[in-house]
Amino acid sequence: MDNFDLKALTLSRKDLASRIDHTKLGPNIKLHDIKVLCEEASVYGFASVCVPPCYVEEANMILNGAPPKICTVIGFPHGNNRTKTKIKETSIAIDDGATEIDMVMSIGLLKSDHLKAVEEDITGVVQICNDTAIVKVILECSLLTDQEIRSACFISQEAGADYVKTSTGFASGGARVEDIAIMHKAVGGKLGIKASGGIRTATQALAMINAGATRIGASASISIIQGLNDD
Amino acid sequence: MDNFDLKALTLSRKDLASRIDHTKLGPNIKLHDIKVLCEEASVYGFASVCVPPCYVEEANMILNGAPPKICTVIGFPHGNNRTKTKIKETSIAIDDGATEIDMVMSIGLLKSDHLKAVEEDITGVVQICNDTAIVKVILECSLLTDQEIRSACFISQEAGADYVKTSTGFASGGARVEDIAIMHKAVGGKLGIKASGGIRTATQALAMINAGATRIGASASISIIQGLNDD
Repeated sequence: MDNFDLKALTLSRKDLASRIDHTKLGPNIKLHDIKVLCEEASVYGFASVCVPPCYVEEANMILNGAPPKICTVIGFPHGNNRTKTKIKETSIAIDDGATEIDMVMSIGLLKSDHLKAVEEDITGVVQICNDTAIVKVILECSLLTDQEIRSACFISQEAGADYVKTSTGFASGGARVEDIAIMHKAVGGKLGIKASGGIRTATQALAMINAGATRIGASASISIIQGLNDD
Repeated sequence: MDNFDLKALTLSRKDLASRIDHTKLGPNIKLHDIKVLCEEASVYGFASVCVPPCYVEEANMILNGAPPKICTVIGFPHGNNRTKTKIKETSIAIDDGATEIDMVMSIGLLKSDHLKAVEEDITGVVQICNDTAIVKVILECSLLTDQEIRSACFISQEAGADYVKTSTGFASGGARVEDIAIMHKAVGGKLGIKASGGIRTATQALAMINAGATRIGASASISIIQGLNDD
C-alpha cells in the first residue's frame, strides 16, 4: 500500500465524502456524540451517519430530512442473534428512520456449515427492508478464510442483499485490500462493497476504492477527507 | 491478589463449580462448541451454560432437562439496542429454553444521564422474564466510573433485576476485585453479583467470591476447577 498512487484516482474531497458512512459505534457512545456526528455529516457531505440502533430516532430528529442517510447496525457486532431478533431490530430501525441496514452475518453458523440458515438469516432482514432500506451484510473477514469470504459473498447475493461489508471494527482485524479484492471478484459488480474497520487515512480509503470498494465506513472520516489533496 | 489466601474460603470443587456459568460467547462459536460446552457442564456440575442466543435452542435439545441451566446474553455485547429489541430477544430466548438472561445495560444512555431510560430498559426485560427466568444486568465496569457503577447497581435493583454483573468479556477490561467490592456495598446483599471477564484461575475466582461475587462467568471454567486444591 506504500506504493499506492493517490493520483490514480481523481476523486475530489466531495466525491470521496459522498462514499463515506460517517460512523460512531460502540458501547459508550453518548447522545451528544450523535449530535456532533450528524452535524459533521451535513457539513462534509458524507453518505450517511452510522449509529447504534438506540440512537436512530435521535439522528432522524436531528437531521430532519437533510441529505445524510441514516445507517444502523443489526445483530452487532457478533451476529449470533436469532433471525427473528434481527428482523425485529431491523423493523424498529426502519420505523425510527434508518434507510441503510448493516447486519452482521451469522458467522458461527457459516463456520458450522449451516449455509441455508445463514442465507435465511439475511433473507429475513432483506425482506423486512423491502424497498425502504438497503442491506449491507457484514462478513467479519478477519475471522474468515478466503473460501468463507467467497461463500459469504455468494450467499449474500442469493439472499438479495445490496452490499457486502468487510468488518464490524470490533474484531481482531479490519478492512484489508486483499479481502476487498476477493469480494470484488466474488460479487462481480452485482453488489456494492463496503470497506470498514481501521480506515484512518485518505491513502487507505483510496486503496480500498481502487481494489473495488464502493463505500467506506469510518469514524476518522474528517481526517480522511482532509488528507486528500484537492487541487 | 498475590497475597490472597486460598484457605480463607473452604470451597470444594463441587461447590465452586456450582457457582460458575460455563461460557462460550463471541462471533465465531460453532454448533460443535456448544455440544462440548453442554457435556462439560454436565460432567463438572457447572451452574449453567452461557451461550449466544442463536444456540439456546440447540443447548436445550442437548441438555434435555439435565441440571445445568441455560443462560444467554441479550443486547450483547454493546447494550445499545432499542429496549423493544431486547425484550423481543429475551422473549425468544425464553421460548428457546433459557432461564438465565444476562442483558447488557444501556451504557451510553447511562453516560448521557438518561437514567430513566436505563431503568426502563432493564424493567422491560425483567417484566418479560416474569417468573420464568432470572435477569443479570451487565454493567461493563471497565467503561464506568465508580460512581456510575454505584448508580447502575441502584438502577438495576430498582428495576427488579436479580444480579448485577461486571463485564461482557469483550471490552477493554474484565472483572476486578475493586469493582466487585463497590457492587457488593451498593447492592447490600439484595442482588446477586456475577464476576466475569478474564477470570482464568481458581485464585482469581476465589478472590472475586471473597469480595462478594456470588456467581462467576468464565470460559476457562475447567482450569479454574482443576486449579482448586480439593483436599
